[in-house]
Amino acid sequence: MTGVEQARLVSVIGAGQAGPEALAQAQEVGRLLAAGGYGVVTGGLGGVMEAAARGAASAGGLTLGILPGLDPQAANPWCRVVIPSGLGQARNVLVVLSGLGVVAVSGGAGTLSEIGHALKVGKPVAGLSSWPVPGVFQAAGPEEAVEYILKSLDTSA
Amino acid sequence: MTGVEQARLVSVIGAGQAGPEALAQAQEVGRLLAAGGYGVVTGGLGGVMEAAARGAASAGGLTLGILPGLDPQAANPWCRVVIPSGLGQARNVLVVLSGLGVVAVSGGAGTLSEIGHALKVGKPVAGLSSWPVPGVFQAAGPEEAVEYILKSLDTSA
Amino acid sequence: MTGVEQARLVSVIGAGQAGPEALAQAQEVGRLLAAGGYGVVTGGLGGVMEAAARGAASAGGLTLGILPGLDPQAANPWCRVVIPSGLGQARNVLVVLSGLGVVAVSGGAGTLSEIGHALKVGKPVAGLSSWPVPGVFQAAGPEEAVEYILKSLDTSA
Amino acid sequence: MTGVEQARLVSVIGAGQAGPEALAQAQEVGRLLAAGGYGVVTGGLGGVMEAAARGAASAGGLTLGILPGLDPQAANPWCRVVIPSGLGQARNVLVVLSGLGVVAVSGGAGTLSEIGHALKVGKPVAGLSSWPVPGVFQAAGPEEAVEYILKSLDTSA
Repeated sequence: MTGVEQARLVSVIGAGQAGPEALAQAQEVGRLLAAGGYGVVTGGLGGVMEAAARGAASAGGLTLGILPGLDPQAANPWCRVVIPSGLGQARNVLVVLSGLGVVAVSGGAGTLSEIGHALKVGKPVAGLSSWPVPGVFQAAGPEEAVEYILKSLDTSA
Repeated sequence: MTGVEQARLVSVIGAGQAGPEALAQAQEVGRLLAAGGYGVVTGGLGGVMEAAARGAASAGGLTLGILPGLDPQAANPWCRVVIPSGLGQARNVLVVLSGLGVVAVSGGAGTLSEIGHALKVGKPVAGLSSWPVPGVFQAAGPEEAVEYILKSLDTSA
Repeated sequence: MTGVEQARLVSVIGAGQAGPEALAQAQEVGRLLAAGGYGVVTGGLGGVMEAAARGAASAGGLTLGILPGLDPQAANPWCRVVIPSGLGQARNVLVVLSGLGVVAVSGGAGTLSEIGHALKVGKPVAGLSSWPVPGVFQAAGPEEAVEYILKSLDTSA
Repeated sequence: MTGVEQARLVSVIGAGQAGPEALAQAQEVGRLLAAGGYGVVTGGLGGVMEAAARGAASAGGLTLGILPGLDPQAANPWCRVVIPSGLGQARNVLVVLSGLGVVAVSGGAGTLSEIGHALKVGKPVAGLSSWPVPGVFQAAGPEEAVEYILKSLDTSA
């Protein structure tokens, strides 16, 4: 034995409160990523973060949640690994840096900050009903979003 | 003597490389903020950050630069106080949190992340040829941008 | 399915370069933690960090590495999950916060900072030939160190 | 005008609650640093942090406070510049990195973490009734502590 396989993660970002459509999309994104062999990293809280983790975990994918606060019990129940960072908003940077690519589902100002951080370091970003920012691939649905990310990662590998 | 007056700072954000118009605008924003009794906090590097600090310092305003790296000598020469944070991109969060409001001048992905962080915590944000994000006041020039911020701070005080 | 089990992690801290005895101790600490049902979180680099991760991973334990830099390939080969934090030394805080308890094996100034952070938030800390700081349980060997941590966690649960 | 003079700061660290002797020492350290042309950076809260800032500010020195939380009003009244970092304990790293050297006055676990961070990056550290850590110059009083730091900085310049 000379090591273990490092988990390949994709960040799924979006609001802590979201409507049923966004939640369904996030869950499907998580499921598709897990089916493609990827784990999911999120901000560890509710809404889109929970739905994406649920989708991934239900399909056997690894789930990582990076919380703004110090209490690991604040994580949603679908996070296998939890970082209670205590960094507040600065944890957004870690959520983005821990993924090879980013899928944004809907989302507010926090999501916008994460999109900015992701683009800054050149990570591929797909958006589903999210911010219309140049450089973000606007996907029609979860399949297209995940396909875009996986293709981008294949190309860059 | 029962204390000292805490400096009131406004964040000026924008790219480390910028064209002459953006630089002139940033410098004027800094000057106007200093004239209004405010100091300026930036990311401490070149371009818009340096121009804003120069404008403020030349008008007697306090200038704070929060660097991504560890070397204080990387700061532009107009920073009176320098934080060599070593936090990389996460220092963007500190730049925004250290100001009572934010003026964005032009800018790329890093600036976008800062706008997101600022809106997340409810700080007033004025933009000059910057990102057309809802919640950002689109100003026609430096005067209007600074006026918007100062009015917002008066109202909230 | 209503969720996944959140991994219970213990932080193992120590220098990136260490002698054969410290490495053997760290590996055994990792192995014992995994045997006890715990995963291991480290700073993700070499020396004690690598040995602890190797011990844990070889025994089927989950391994998390939180790197100071941005390159996930800088992680040692025994990290299943990697956070390329880009936070420099500030990642030490995350290493400590992500564990329920801390085992320090030998170690220099970075390890000292982590012991301080751990004690500050009241986590149990066991030391093996590490800093003689009040509040740190000085263990005679890996078994005693791990036993101390697991007992402390049982009591606090 | 080609720039402003970058403030030269020394970190003064210690507990948020301290006895009268430690407070008197911290205040004198701040005063002596200001008299020597240095500003003071602290964690911005009470106890040793406040006493050091008071000593420095009363002698005309610049004072910087880097808070763990988000509320700038939590700073003690002697901080001229305040960073409400929201980073929790991770702000300790910034307190140390923002100074050219460090004086520790008494102090608990948080102070210990700061001493570790300072030694890690090779900053000179003087201690007054603080942790007996190798590499920390144990000073007999404020004068000796400040003298040690100023000499170390002269040598390294």
